[in-house]
Amino acid sequence: MKPLQLPSPAIIGQDARTVGTPALLLELDAFESNLRQMAALTARHNIVLRPHAKAHKSSAIAKAQIAMGAVGICCQKLSEAYPFVLAGIRDIHISNEFVGADKIAMAVNLAQHARLSVCVDHPSQVDALGKAAGQAGVVITVLPEVDIGQGRCGVDSKNSLLALADRIGTHSGLRFGGLQAYHGGIQHVGDWGSRKLKASHGADLTASYVQCLDSRGIACPVVTGGGTGTAEFDAASGVFTEIQPGSYIFMDGHYGENGWAGELRLQHSLFIATTIMSAAKPGQAVCDVGLKGVAVDSGLPLIRSDARHDSLRYVAANDEHGILHTDADGSHNLLGERLLLIPGHCDPTCNLYEQFVCIRNNIVEALWDIDARGLSR
Amino acid sequence: MKPLQLPSPAIIGQDARTVGTPALLLELDAFESNLRQMAALTARHNIVLRPHAKAHKSSAIAKAQIAMGAVGICCQKLSEAYPFVLAGIRDIHISNEFVGADKIAMAVNLAQHARLSVCVDHPSQVDALGKAAGQAGVVITVLPEVDIGQGRCGVDSKNSLLALADRIGTHSGLRFGGLQAYHGGIQHVGDWGSRKLKASHGADLTASYVQCLDSRGIACPVVTGGGTGTAEFDAASGVFTEIQPGSYIFMDGHYGENGWAGELRLQHSLFIATTIMSAAKPGQAVCDVGLKGVAVDSGLPLIRSDARHDSLRYVAANDEHGILHTDADGSHNLLGERLLLIPGHCDPTCNLYEQFVCIRNNIVEALWDIDARGLSR
Repeated sequence: MKPLQLPSPAIIGQDARTVGTPALLLELDAFESNLRQMAALTARHNIVLRPHAKAHKSSAIAKAQIAMGAVGICCQKLSEAYPFVLAGIRDIHISNEFVGADKIAMAVNLAQHARLSVCVDHPSQVDALGKAAGQAGVVITVLPEVDIGQGRCGVDSKNSLLALADRIGTHSGLRFGGLQAYHGGIQHVGDWGSRKLKASHGADLTASYVQCLDSRGIACPVVTGGGTGTAEFDAASGVFTEIQPGSYIFMDGHYGENGWAGELRLQHSLFIATTIMSAAKPGQAVCDVGLKGVAVDSGLPLIRSDARHDSLRYVAANDEHGILHTDADGSHNLLGERLLLIPGHCDPTCNLYEQFVCIRNNIVEALWDIDARGLSR
Repeated sequence: MKPLQLPSPAIIGQDARTVGTPALLLELDAFESNLRQMAALTARHNIVLRPHAKAHKSSAIAKAQIAMGAVGICCQKLSEAYPFVLAGIRDIHISNEFVGADKIAMAVNLAQHARLSVCVDHPSQVDALGKAAGQAGVVITVLPEVDIGQGRCGVDSKNSLLALADRIGTHSGLRFGGLQAYHGGIQHVGDWGSRKLKASHGADLTASYVQCLDSRGIACPVVTGGGTGTAEFDAASGVFTEIQPGSYIFMDGHYGENGWAGELRLQHSLFIATTIMSAAKPGQAVCDVGLKGVAVDSGLPLIRSDARHDSLRYVAANDEHGILHTDADGSHNLLGERLLLIPGHCDPTCNLYEQFVCIRNNIVEALWDIDARGLSR
């Protein structure tokens, strides 16, 4: 009798076409091409690349990004930063605000082990952090967030920004680091020219905040922001000193819908392997990837086209089932067939898995832990 | 200098109002009331309660259900069953079909350690499982799934059902166990009377399949199905010998929209504690629970009403941010405030967390691991 033990998602050297499904596959050739392209873009514009780790939540991927020239990473949550620092990554920017004693304690603890920068948009956040940093004898770099059109977090007046910069200066444990300026709402503007125009408006507004500080004698060593959709424009803007793209490594379905008329030729590298486990109805098949295997907030997954499955469309996600429709006859013959899905939205999809099954030429080359999965505090 | 260590989500005895957010809170009084109500319903109708563990993915909750009279549990995936069997739960029904060598191997391994039943809707699934079970010397109980209106998996003709029953009988390692009959599409019919009518149609159709088998001399020891929305009707139907409700323990926002005119008075027991971490815009606040902290496939989370926050509405989920709107003035004053969210859909929400923070009278009483989280194979 075999002991009861859950098998590993995959084994190094295994034929990728036999990996048990659902599995989160990372095609290394495409992934590395994406890494190289973004590194080349930032190098040519002489700006810093600080990729956003919220997209992958994996210290193995962060290390690959840093090996390719990234200075460090962004995280969106303090708890998310822990596995990265524990893995030896010592330059972390929390591109987000936080409030509460538990969060302040995490920030101070992280600052004892890494170069930490964080964002604020209210003086009370500054004071709480400054008091704790001073008591602990650490220095935390603070970047006020300015709202450049997203309408979510960040101050939207020069007076509020100046008040924050002044307040940061009153705390010995804090250091003013520059500005955080990110407009998530324009990352998926499909038309390349329209996206470029909107990005330039955002950069202009960011520049006006930099100038306002400059006129008060406050230098901005770092102006950080930008995502995958605006990376080319932000990198060339002359305003941003640093960009924070996350999804570029994966190129999910939602970003795939964007027009890409510039130099970036990002490739889909992230796929979910799925198996058709029921095909009892004409014109329909059911696969083993539903809501718990792929995030659908930014659209249902696409099916990677291949000769056998071109007529299939993923039309609905139940908890554990994906409903596929086909115009072709003979859906019964699909039972047991494997498909590759392109997730609509990479960030919340990766957050559902334990590991990336990294493949090259259809062989499993590595398993990379998603070690920050679920860390949302 | 403090060592770098991620703090636990909560500590036993802690004031629940100080637990770091996001946190998945389980209010034990409401949870236990829900447990008792479903146990009483099934006991009165003299049927078996086999709750669906896909809703909670926690062996601690499964044990609480079994302590209250449940015979065992359902899982939707084979990998999902492992932590439950490892925790000592030895009666597992996989209420779903599966295909592939890795899945067959898991089924055989589970059957070596538990009483396992599974579903099929195609003869090839029967043959693959039967061959492996025979070789391993285990017996697996097999329940063909009949489609009673869901239109997803399951056979929809008596001939197909009889063919499956006959095929099961050809394998020494398989035992025909009865029927799986579940109609997910009617669980959320809001009007109680309409839901009752649809449930009775499903039960009638199920009964016709039982009779068909009976006329061929094949007894159905188990007729299993039903969910939280139809539990009262299925329990009273005289057709189902066993029901499989999952969400009843939590009563999520989506089920809360149902009309409940019968005896069940299920209470919301599952909440997500969140903190407003930015309030830089008039009429808007931003909390720390977004797509990675609450599933939004069945609607955005509701805010548990309290005197301070009655004007707030959760209007959009970004990856790590929840956007709240308020008609009241003074959103700046909301910075740092805590709210409780009622998730729209409990199953994929629980799958995002490591632990339930179990509370009673606002004190943390226990931490229960979500030990099957992410197990989707």
